[in-house]
Amino acid sequence: MTERLQKTIEAIKPLDRAAMRAAGERQDNLTKPRGSLGRLEALAVQIAGIRREPVPVLENKAIITMAADHGVTRQAVSLYPPEVTRQMVLNFIGGGAAINVLARHIGGRVIVVDMGVAGGLVEMTGLVSRPVAPGTQDFSLGAAMSRQQAVTAIETGIEILEGEVKRGLDIVGTGDMGIGNTTSASAICAAVTGRPVSEVTGRGTGIDDRQLAHKVGVIEKALNTNRPDPADPLDVLAKVGGFEIGGLAGVMLGGAARQMPVVIDGFISGAAALIACGLAPRLKDYLIPSHLSVEAGHRAVYQHLGLKPCLDLDMRLGEGTGAALGIFLAEAATRLLGEMATFKEASVSQAEPGKKRET
Amino acid sequence: MTERLQKTIEAIKPLDRAAMRAAGERQDNLTKPRGSLGRLEALAVQIAGIRREPVPVLENKAIITMAADHGVTRQAVSLYPPEVTRQMVLNFIGGGAAINVLARHIGGRVIVVDMGVAGGLVEMTGLVSRPVAPGTQDFSLGAAMSRQQAVTAIETGIEILEGEVKRGLDIVGTGDMGIGNTTSASAICAAVTGRPVSEVTGRGTGIDDRQLAHKVGVIEKALNTNRPDPADPLDVLAKVGGFEIGGLAGVMLGGAARQMPVVIDGFISGAAALIACGLAPRLKDYLIPSHLSVEAGHRAVYQHLGLKPCLDLDMRLGEGTGAALGIFLAEAATRLLGEMATFKEASVSQAEPGKKRET
Repeated sequence: MTERLQKTIEAIKPLDRAAMRAAGERQDNLTKPRGSLGRLEALAVQIAGIRREPVPVLENKAIITMAADHGVTRQAVSLYPPEVTRQMVLNFIGGGAAINVLARHIGGRVIVVDMGVAGGLVEMTGLVSRPVAPGTQDFSLGAAMSRQQAVTAIETGIEILEGEVKRGLDIVGTGDMGIGNTTSASAICAAVTGRPVSEVTGRGTGIDDRQLAHKVGVIEKALNTNRPDPADPLDVLAKVGGFEIGGLAGVMLGGAARQMPVVIDGFISGAAALIACGLAPRLKDYLIPSHLSVEAGHRAVYQHLGLKPCLDLDMRLGEGTGAALGIFLAEAATRLLGEMATFKEASVSQAEPGKKRET
Repeated sequence: MTERLQKTIEAIKPLDRAAMRAAGERQDNLTKPRGSLGRLEALAVQIAGIRREPVPVLENKAIITMAADHGVTRQAVSLYPPEVTRQMVLNFIGGGAAINVLARHIGGRVIVVDMGVAGGLVEMTGLVSRPVAPGTQDFSLGAAMSRQQAVTAIETGIEILEGEVKRGLDIVGTGDMGIGNTTSASAICAAVTGRPVSEVTGRGTGIDDRQLAHKVGVIEKALNTNRPDPADPLDVLAKVGGFEIGGLAGVMLGGAARQMPVVIDGFISGAAALIACGLAPRLKDYLIPSHLSVEAGHRAVYQHLGLKPCLDLDMRLGEGTGAALGIFLAEAATRLLGEMATFKEASVSQAEPGKKRET
């Protein structure tokens, strides 16, 4: 591990208990029955601990959507041709993709990053070009990338996050684009959680039963060929990962190191979280789960991380679409904490659990 | 039933299938795998059918929050004194309640309605004063209101909805305030669904086990005393309902009659939906469920109506807080439908389910 990565991991501190306590006390004095805002209350307290302030304000919101190609698409694991990765990156830049619409809806920006799109992408306004290589190797035949490339991918994610902090950032969401990347995410999920491949492999963009059986076979072969070490997250990433997955792991680590709540999207971001939490277990406290994807392995990811999703909308698009909705909820939670009147301010009577009333 | 109510019920038409078909076709050509936006896709198609246009735009959003008092609070069913209803109405007007914060967050307005707050409220800017009476009678001893008052409450809701349509409205959410109203909602739920009172009665603002057993007993006594006829929704409302619940049923009926998507909040709004759907079964297609409340009976309400909530955040506040989050999701769904690029517009390749690729 390099010094930069090591330093970032070490910079991830436990949440600020004093800020959380202050937020919780304020919460209990707001004009509502205690706990009646449910998980929104817990979310506000968590964000107070992350931002190290009792009443955090989430003004600057960004979704970092990372794109890369996957050599394993040569094994026909997806319904879409690999050139769709590049085409969708151009769609992101043009503002016509789902993530662009949802980012506008929540008042956030989208950072589009080329982490390794096949064939390369010319420089253009709105694209952050940081390719590690033009797509991974076919991991059914050998490692997806070298260990050095795995580190580079993660460090690139850290650097991009830090650049966004300089531009102004209070909360970040993760997103992905990469034809074939559910195959990589399933392989990571099986390797890290130890669950059978068939249990954590889904239909991705919409393959049928026969194609699903084929995909499971490809992943089983990849794990047998590469034997990733579940105790070594960099090994797992190098053997069966993707450049966008490594980059997103870096965004998460960098975010936590900079006291940033990180809203994780669907299954691909979940796989990145498995890698990142393997490197830095404390990261988990900085993660905010958004939705439960229909992709089979996502539930296993959440169980492994001990997280419970906020939304269950049968989504499976990626790009950061779930994260955008999650950022909306996080902002709702912090605005409630910051803007609601207290019982005293509003002259509202409090609960009378002790008082015996006529029956 | 009066002419106005009858006419409103008759004005609720089946959804516009042509608009839904057109919306679905557009949906399938947007730059994403088919169905990958899950329930947001279904939501956009439903709203197209409600609004009778293929690409609906939800610009004007409002939450109608209705307040009233309940005579049954004399039986000590709540943790809060009844004067909190009035105090919270003033908090709504002052902008300091949870619903105010969430309405600002989604860019919508809150309509605060006095449907029958005990002691009356003076006229003030921002308050719609339409009290049916200063609180219901204690329904553990007899009917909560007369049948005429039940009709008046519903018709008031219809009138208020129609007034908001004139001001400009594309989607409406329902909300409630009324100390003691989970007791009324549980009684309605038990009466309409036929489930045991103990199964559909919860802790409301936070009562303990002993108080819960007492509350169940009060509701059982009320149902034995009043014997509401489950086949006659007006009878159920009159016997064990509340003025805000009747008003919200009217908002729902009026909304559907005016081609308005109606986002229903938690358990109280759910009880109103049971009354309203009993009067007009077609209304169901116009309802958008928001969240699943922790209040015990809410699941039974959804099951009876055949609806599945979008959010599960352990909320139990009411006021329209869940509906506000639901309106955000509905707007997200329609914006995705309207603003995303098609495959053709963005020059993105489509799925190739037929093509045999190298393996």
